[in-house]
Amino acid sequence: MATIAFVGLGNMGGPMLANLVKAGHALHAFDLSQDALARAETAGATRAATAAEAAAAAEVVITMLPAGQHVRQVYMDESGGLIGAAPKGALLIDCSTIDVDSARAVAAAAADAGQRMVDAPVSGGVGAAEAGTLTFMVGGADDAVEAARPILEAMGKAVVHTGGPGTGQAAKICNNMMLGIQMLSVCEAFMLAKRLGLDAQKLFDVSSRASGQCWSLTTYCPVPGPVPTSPANRDYKAGFTAAMMLKDLKLAQQAAAVSGAATPLGGLAESLYAVFCNHEGGGTLDFSGIIQMIEGDA
Amino acid sequence: MATIAFVGLGNMGGPMLANLVKAGHALHAFDLSQDALARAETAGATRAATAAEAAAAAEVVITMLPAGQHVRQVYMDESGGLIGAAPKGALLIDCSTIDVDSARAVAAAAADAGQRMVDAPVSGGVGAAEAGTLTFMVGGADDAVEAARPILEAMGKAVVHTGGPGTGQAAKICNNMMLGIQMLSVCEAFMLAKRLGLDAQKLFDVSSRASGQCWSLTTYCPVPGPVPTSPANRDYKAGFTAAMMLKDLKLAQQAAAVSGAATPLGGLAESLYAVFCNHEGGGTLDFSGIIQMIEGDA
Amino acid sequence: MATIAFVGLGNMGGPMLANLVKAGHALHAFDLSQDALARAETAGATRAATAAEAAAAAEVVITMLPAGQHVRQVYMDESGGLIGAAPKGALLIDCSTIDVDSARAVAAAAADAGQRMVDAPVSGGVGAAEAGTLTFMVGGADDAVEAARPILEAMGKAVVHTGGPGTGQAAKICNNMMLGIQMLSVCEAFMLAKRLGLDAQKLFDVSSRASGQCWSLTTYCPVPGPVPTSPANRDYKAGFTAAMMLKDLKLAQQAAAVSGAATPLGGLAESLYAVFCNHEGGGTLDFSGIIQMIEGDA
Amino acid sequence: MATIAFVGLGNMGGPMLANLVKAGHALHAFDLSQDALARAETAGATRAATAAEAAAAAEVVITMLPAGQHVRQVYMDESGGLIGAAPKGALLIDCSTIDVDSARAVAAAAADAGQRMVDAPVSGGVGAAEAGTLTFMVGGADDAVEAARPILEAMGKAVVHTGGPGTGQAAKICNNMMLGIQMLSVCEAFMLAKRLGLDAQKLFDVSSRASGQCWSLTTYCPVPGPVPTSPANRDYKAGFTAAMMLKDLKLAQQAAAVSGAATPLGGLAESLYAVFCNHEGGGTLDFSGIIQMIEGDA
Repeated sequence: MATIAFVGLGNMGGPMLANLVKAGHALHAFDLSQDALARAETAGATRAATAAEAAAAAEVVITMLPAGQHVRQVYMDESGGLIGAAPKGALLIDCSTIDVDSARAVAAAAADAGQRMVDAPVSGGVGAAEAGTLTFMVGGADDAVEAARPILEAMGKAVVHTGGPGTGQAAKICNNMMLGIQMLSVCEAFMLAKRLGLDAQKLFDVSSRASGQCWSLTTYCPVPGPVPTSPANRDYKAGFTAAMMLKDLKLAQQAAAVSGAATPLGGLAESLYAVFCNHEGGGTLDFSGIIQMIEGDA
Repeated sequence: MATIAFVGLGNMGGPMLANLVKAGHALHAFDLSQDALARAETAGATRAATAAEAAAAAEVVITMLPAGQHVRQVYMDESGGLIGAAPKGALLIDCSTIDVDSARAVAAAAADAGQRMVDAPVSGGVGAAEAGTLTFMVGGADDAVEAARPILEAMGKAVVHTGGPGTGQAAKICNNMMLGIQMLSVCEAFMLAKRLGLDAQKLFDVSSRASGQCWSLTTYCPVPGPVPTSPANRDYKAGFTAAMMLKDLKLAQQAAAVSGAATPLGGLAESLYAVFCNHEGGGTLDFSGIIQMIEGDA
Repeated sequence: MATIAFVGLGNMGGPMLANLVKAGHALHAFDLSQDALARAETAGATRAATAAEAAAAAEVVITMLPAGQHVRQVYMDESGGLIGAAPKGALLIDCSTIDVDSARAVAAAAADAGQRMVDAPVSGGVGAAEAGTLTFMVGGADDAVEAARPILEAMGKAVVHTGGPGTGQAAKICNNMMLGIQMLSVCEAFMLAKRLGLDAQKLFDVSSRASGQCWSLTTYCPVPGPVPTSPANRDYKAGFTAAMMLKDLKLAQQAAAVSGAATPLGGLAESLYAVFCNHEGGGTLDFSGIIQMIEGDA
Repeated sequence: MATIAFVGLGNMGGPMLANLVKAGHALHAFDLSQDALARAETAGATRAATAAEAAAAAEVVITMLPAGQHVRQVYMDESGGLIGAAPKGALLIDCSTIDVDSARAVAAAAADAGQRMVDAPVSGGVGAAEAGTLTFMVGGADDAVEAARPILEAMGKAVVHTGGPGTGQAAKICNNMMLGIQMLSVCEAFMLAKRLGLDAQKLFDVSSRASGQCWSLTTYCPVPGPVPTSPANRDYKAGFTAAMMLKDLKLAQQAAAVSGAATPLGGLAESLYAVFCNHEGGGTLDFSGIIQMIEGDA
């Protein structure tokens, strides 16, 4: 079993750490929040006073942070950054969802310091974090990814090696850009159908077996009824919030702008979620709740 | 077996008629094109001099025409229209893809004349028309739809009763609006991935099992490789042309405008296909070929 | 002075008729609303029992109707339509804002009947209708337009001959498509400026003299302050309602779809106004009130 | 007269430096390009070996650099950055067009070092740089802006104080976001008019006096004819390139994403310019040349 430093113990990091403890690893936890640290201790981790302290004797370092600026700072800070604090040869696993450039910059700094690093953003949300059924999209050198695989498998059901450093982030935001666009396509179609007198269940029956089929329809239908487990059936209680969807859509647009890709529908999806989230309560609803904005008060 | 009048013998109507002949029905064919009539005769139909003549003794009338204005005219023309020419109690089946309002107007006129009518637009394209594996989305009263079912089953693999008159058209254009948007989402994602250094097969492997999954990705991937049967693997030779996709997206936007539905992504998909089709050769490529416009000359 | 039949006496037609009476013309008025007819009588017109009756002895026929289907019906109806009822050689002036195809169809029917016709949609709204300061964009043959000019000048300040039949409608909806897009551009810019800590008056001072200058900014500023007469200064009380803007944007998209033009921003402007108007109260606000949707509850 | 360090001598910086020399100032120039340095010397500047050397005795430092990362580096680099090299009390003027956050970060660092700084991005392009008729949008404290005013007036015709640090950048990108959207609105309108049979000059005559009026129409018309000086009349030879427009639209979208503003049309304008610039030759045409993409091969 491994000695693992875990930095970032929020809604996702907390349950992920707990699953690593259950798998028999020795966890050293750090977070700025005392409450989060207390929960980690309760789950069986040792609390550290700083991120550097957590990393000092770790074989593996895992991070789950909000954005690229945090990941850069936590890893690369000259005094107390994880790259400097972790032993040479340590395996660094960043599970945050951040911009591709930051992921590549930090991986390069790690390589310079003789450490192996992978970007391993997740898919599945809080429920999958708790259940240990996350999907990891992992970018990095072959040996680093394979070293990370058993660690990640303690927290998830799938580990996909996507390519070199940064490709894990790239896969996540490309997938989630498609998700945001496709969810909106389904919302628009159901609201159009409603106004044309076509019953929602009938549209579902047709399209779930036809060329308009997508996960947002068949697994997460944004109207109540056809998929009883979807958040639409419980007043759009999240799930995966609209604010989280907007964060990912912004990362996709940032990546497009930097790389020169043209993403007209991705940009429109981002701006529509921005309108939705700028209205009271929108951001905390499930991301399928944007159907309410499309529908209006009809 | 039924005596069937078939009006409109183009790329779709021709093969559909042939399958009805194979099923043992007596076909009376009409089209403005002599070549089309000749092909229908070769397939075993009797040629009629006018649409009205074809309909005069028919138990069933089937039409496959380009747009609502043609359907209105062919059915409702005071002298020679099919409603007037067909016997009372005839079953009228319009398989054209047209605007919902026209479908409902013609169905109402048919009802006034004591005839049963259904709108039964198809999905599957020329290949499915030839193979007899079309999907029909059928709107109309229960008895009319059930009377049509065995006739349609001679031409297709699926017959879905979507609701009252016009709902067949509604289902088709709602599905195809989702298709156009989703195809563009996949094109944008693959071109963004390319510029981020993420291999296309890797993105396919991730998203085909994740929340970005859709038919446009897993059955009709717009980049060559992951789905060897998709048109991307043969230089985007159609398939389902961009011009046909644009036609359907225009019908969706027309329906939205008339019914008051808000369809931002549907409208953007329509305009992007309009840009694509306005450039030499765009309209005749497979609709997945729009990835070339998204990609540029990179 | 001329004997004029005026059909369609709503918010616009009523005041337009009144200005023609003031100019000394003999008006015969028709509308389905008894109240509107009563107001027309009060203004000095003679009320007619039917549109045909109003037209029977008219030298000039003027119409102000909601949409193309009404214009087609009122002019072309076989029993009682204005083309059949008006004397040969009558001058027909349609001031409605309708789709280009309907305008051209009715003009062709008029020509077949030996009457001159122009499409003369207006700009300026109810205030300009009352003040007699409308702008007319007039399509039709030279002689017809020149014959119409003095009649229109009794109601407006500008009469622009735009070309042949239908070009008046074309000019109006091309102009109003630009208006809708440009108003949204200004709304987005001011709300972005606000979030960046740039004062609205400063942005106005810069852009009113720079390349971002447009009528929506310098004459109709959607934030209160810089242009004290704009509806923003009175809680967005219309003005030109969002519902009217949406109507015009729909006509532009219809024209684009029929003619094959690609209008991505025009389509997005239409869908955003559709979202806005689908929410309680949106449609009756001034069209600059869409800034509230862009802003959110910030 | 002032001793001025000028760093960044490209298409804009070179002519700006020349106008400062003409106004009698003592210029110390630095650029990574030897050719640019040689031209600066020819114009009457003294060449410096490094940016720090140029700044060492300067009362005023002016920079004209491509992006925020360059501005941060050139000013804030620990060894050789301009903030460290310039005398305490120096006036720092950054004329680059960069993201608002970088402008504010560098201004804060300057303030910490006891120097005054303003962000003063320009409008007017290379022609105005050469002619000394630029417009400056200046953000910073009152005393710093007033100290900068006479220096800027040697290079331009207008100096607008927009507010505190960063507001100069904010004003520029808000204005240019409106510009990009409005230029596209005019392109779409003219191409729609063309397909509707409305002559371009007629649309110009109507809209230049109506609610669709904007600078992009009346000063920079994207079709040849109505405004003989516009680039449309010389095959869209730039002018202001599409690549430059795209750069500004990306800055606007970045600012929107960071600040939470919703900018649907701004985002769509950005993506359409991205499509245009990704095709061979698009980026180097005048930004009004995007009308060719809207038009297609019609």
